Order: sequence, then C-alpha cells, then structure tokens
Amino acid sequence: MDRREEIYEKSLELFIENGYVQTPLSRIAGALNLTKAGLYHYFKSKEELLFFIHEHNLKKDFIPTLDAAEKISDPEGRITHFLKNYMQRSLTKNAAAKMLIQEANKLKPEHHEKIKKVWRRAFDLIYNAISELEEAGKVERVNKTFATFAAIGMCSWTFYWFDYDRRESGRELSDNYIKIFFKGLLKD
Amino acid sequence: MDRREEIYEKSLELFIENGYVQTPLSRIAGALNLTKAGLYHYFKSKEELLFFIHEHNLKKDFIPTLDAAEKISDPEGRITHFLKNYMQRSLTKNAAAKMLIQEANKLKPEHHEKIKKVWRRAFDLIYNAISELEEAGKVERVNKTFATFAAIGMCSWTFYWFDYDRRESGRELSDNYIKIFFKGLLKD
Repeated sequence: MDRREEIYEKSLELFIENGYVQTPLSRIAGALNLTKAGLYHYFKSKEELLFFIHEHNLKKDFIPTLDAAEKISDPEGRITHFLKNYMQRSLTKNAAAKMLIQEANKLKPEHHEKIKKVWRRAFDLIYNAISELEEAGKVERVNKTFATFAAIGMCSWTFYWFDYDRRESGRELSDNYIKIFFKGLLKD
Repeated sequence: MDRREEIYEKSLELFIENGYVQTPLSRIAGALNLTKAGLYHYFKSKEELLFFIHEHNLKKDFIPTLDAAEKISDPEGRITHFLKNYMQRSLTKNAAAKMLIQEANKLKPEHHEKIKKVWRRAFDLIYNAISELEEAGKVERVNKTFATFAAIGMCSWTFYWFDYDRRESGRELSDNYIKIFFKGLLKD
C-alpha cells in the first residue's frame, strides 16, 4: 500500500474513533510507526491531513457517484442513481461520511470551499433534474430548492442514527427514501 | 433576569459562536462579569453547563411542541403539528438546535441518555401516528422506521444549510417538507 494511503486509512480510523480535535498528530504518527517529523514529511499540519482525507474520500466514492449520475439523461434516473449510491457507497457503508461532514468546519476556509464545491455539484444535479421534470409538467407545485434539500436531508441525516453493524439494511433504506421522495415530488 | 437564565443565554451564544470545545469556562465567566469560582457556584463543570443548556432549551420549545402534538388525536394532524413547530420554533429560529445536536456527544453518557429520551418521544410520536394511518389503510407499503427517519431527517438537516438571516422562509420551508412527506407517505 502507498504510504499516503496508509496514513489516510489510519487517521480516518482514529478521527472516527476519537474525533478530529481529540486526536493529536503524535498519536497518528505512533499508530503508523512514524515519528512526528516523519508524518510532517507528508502533511505540514493536522488541518492539511484532514483536507487530504476529505478529498481522498470524495474521490473514492462520492465523485464517481456524481460523475456517473450526471451522465444519465433521464432526470428521474439521474436523481435515483445519485441518491442510491450516495446512501449505499457513502452514508451506510461506514462512519467516514459522518466524521467528515461533522468536522468540515475545522477546515481552513479555502479548503472548506473546495469541499463545498463538490457538495454543490450534488445540489445542482438534483435541482436541475427537478427543473427538467417541472418543465415536462411532472412535478407538484413545490419550491425546488426546498425539494432538493428534502432529498439531501433525509438521506444525509442517516448518519445520526444508522447502525453500521446492520449495514445490509442500507439497500432497503435507500429504496424507501427514493420511493417517498418521488411519490412526494411527482404528480400522480 | 434570573442568574441561571443569564448564564444560559450567554453561554449558548458563546458556544454557538465559537464551539463548545473552544470556549473555556473562564471566557464565559468573563462575559458575565463573574469569577470562574463564581460560575462554579452554579455549575460544577463545563459539561454540567452544557447539559443545563440542553435541558433548558428543550423545555422552552421542543417539549411544549411534543406535549401539544401528543394531545392531537388525528394522526396526520399530530405529525403535522410536530414537524411544523419543530421547524419553526427550533430549527429555523436560531442556531441553538444546530449547536446542541452537534455537541450532544460531548455530554456524559447519563446526560446524553436523558436528552435522547426526549428525542425518542419525537420518534415514537411519528412512528405511532404512521402505524395508526397504516391500520386505517391509508399508507403506502413502506418501512415505518425508515419513513419516520425520512421526516425527522429532512427537517433536522435544515441546520446544515439554513440561512438564519432569512428566517422568514422557515414557514414556507416547513409547509413544503410536510407536503412532500405526506404525499410521499399516503396513498392517493
């Protein structure tokens, strides 16, 4: 395994377990059999490490989900693909998304902005798909921004209550959410 | 104003502004023109203060919302009353609910349990109302636990994106969420 990948895995694990603020770099270095100076060779600060974990995590699961969804021309299919994979590949897989979303405000403003840009792609994907459905006369009268956040919110809130020891229920959960959302949004 | 009420207001404000971990008791005491020993007269630790803020905040808005909703016999009306008031009196009023939910894991386990018991009342209220609607043959085939979390999640996620300078939109927002949720849940 690549050394940075190893640092990613271990610090993600420790941040999930003990929180970002409560995990000193020296502890991460120790768990990797590195000196603190050795770890500084890869990351100049704990914040830089947190940003790397954020970016790396998004590249693994969330960005591929967005890339694939954006290619789907049918707007209902596009939202469905995004929500299903966001639920199954990110939110119900492990507690990484939970930790990263909750600690995002510990990032420097310029780093936080970069992460928010990726999140913004998800908002735009859903919002634009709802707009297409609306133009086709298929949508109930609804505020499109609020409908977009309804979908994002019901999915994202999952990390506050989901039991990662029962992750096999992630599929049923995402199916239920997608069903409730579309039935709520679309005209009969 | 009662002294404990004053401490509540000021520490809530400072915790919202700077985070719980980043706000030392000495700073709170200073902002109240108290010595640290003076503040300790009221609260033996920062955690005790956080717990007091949690309980006091719930008593002001969330528990009255639950009390009133639980008295409504119509299950649709019960869920509507709860979601509307949870949105308007807690989530879109100010950032207190945001801070308290995000910092709840800083409470001692026995304090955290007491707060979770109140939250559990909200879950039960929605779950039981959905059960009644289901017995009356009014509900789509859906996992009731997941449907309950869909409602709680879409509402609660609000604090991640809501602009408290535009709190007048809270009413339209809660109306949209309630409409999407019931149309998603109920048979036509």
